[in-house]
Amino acid sequence: MGRWEPNARGRLAEAALQLYSERGFEQTTVAEIARRAGLTERTFFRHYADKREVLFGSGELQELFVQAVAGAPESASPIDAMAVGLDAVCEMFADRHAHARKRQAVITANAELRERELIKLASVSAALADALRRRGVAEPAASLTAEAGVAVFKVGFERWIGAAEGRPMTQLVRESLAELKAVTAGHQGAPADGGSRGGDA
Amino acid sequence: MGRWEPNARGRLAEAALQLYSERGFEQTTVAEIARRAGLTERTFFRHYADKREVLFGSGELQELFVQAVAGAPESASPIDAMAVGLDAVCEMFADRHAHARKRQAVITANAELRERELIKLASVSAALADALRRRGVAEPAASLTAEAGVAVFKVGFERWIGAAEGRPMTQLVRESLAELKAVTAGHQGAPADGGSRGGDA
Repeated sequence: MGRWEPNARGRLAEAALQLYSERGFEQTTVAEIARRAGLTERTFFRHYADKREVLFGSGELQELFVQAVAGAPESASPIDAMAVGLDAVCEMFADRHAHARKRQAVITANAELRERELIKLASVSAALADALRRRGVAEPAASLTAEAGVAVFKVGFERWIGAAEGRPMTQLVRESLAELKAVTAGHQGAPADGGSRGGDA
Repeated sequence: MGRWEPNARGRLAEAALQLYSERGFEQTTVAEIARRAGLTERTFFRHYADKREVLFGSGELQELFVQAVAGAPESASPIDAMAVGLDAVCEMFADRHAHARKRQAVITANAELRERELIKLASVSAALADALRRRGVAEPAASLTAEAGVAVFKVGFERWIGAAEGRPMTQLVRESLAELKAVTAGHQGAPADGGSRGGDA
């Protein structure tokens, strides 16, 4: 087998996700992932440090999110810059629904992976706050806007991969942002179908 | 030494925090904590499962936060119920500034402890969302309000234990909540001293 394999990284990721889904993350070995992908363990370790890296390795989400926030029009308010970032992230996920759903099921089933996911989101939040400060946003507004953005992403994403959901992620994330704006403005939570808001309980 | 020691739990926690601060979390053993507290290792393990538990054991924050949100006036909007919870939490911390600061320095210095802190906050957020749903708040408003509450707590807390800060935690957390409301309403971030908001950049 040659040293260079076409799309080895993607094949390993796909094989790993299949195996994690079939038999669980704990029960899967690197040897099995490599075999399923038709590659060697050596090749695996050229691309990933360990089994966990396959699920969290790329840093693509953070990079894209931060770049979009940084690149929002200068005149955009912090929350509007965050909305630009959220849209960019949704676009990235658009054709990955099945993959994202499978990946999330693997993560949810494993405490260690859930921790890793929290760390990743905390890192995204810190990077977003940094991007906002570079746009001239003061503290604590920068950190609060970043945390709000990550919360909106998280809630929107969970709805998107939820069982009953067929709508595009962009729509669900935008709805979540609108809902966050509504609740911080003192409204009661309204049903997510966009129905009229109830009065006070 | 008798089987029951007056305030063993508190003495162990104090001794542990001293040692973690002096020589680092990793470098401290349970035997040393027990010795410093004038107690035995057996007594330590009657109160805490391990070294980490001493820093995160009580669950007091989550319980108090959730109870206060649940007990807010029925007519309160979700974000106002969250404000009641935040005030209650600030009151709990009021006379613990030195302790909280020392504890946070220990946590910040250790990746494993930072992870544990993130897990704790995720658990608080989930419990708050649950409390809001029991108040009749729909999803995604409940989860978003809970995430917003935890973000406000986190940012306010960090300011409170920050080097240059002398104001009470209640004031800083209320300011953070006001700032979150302002940014989600589309304002630019203003300096935290309450000065007038700048125009668009």
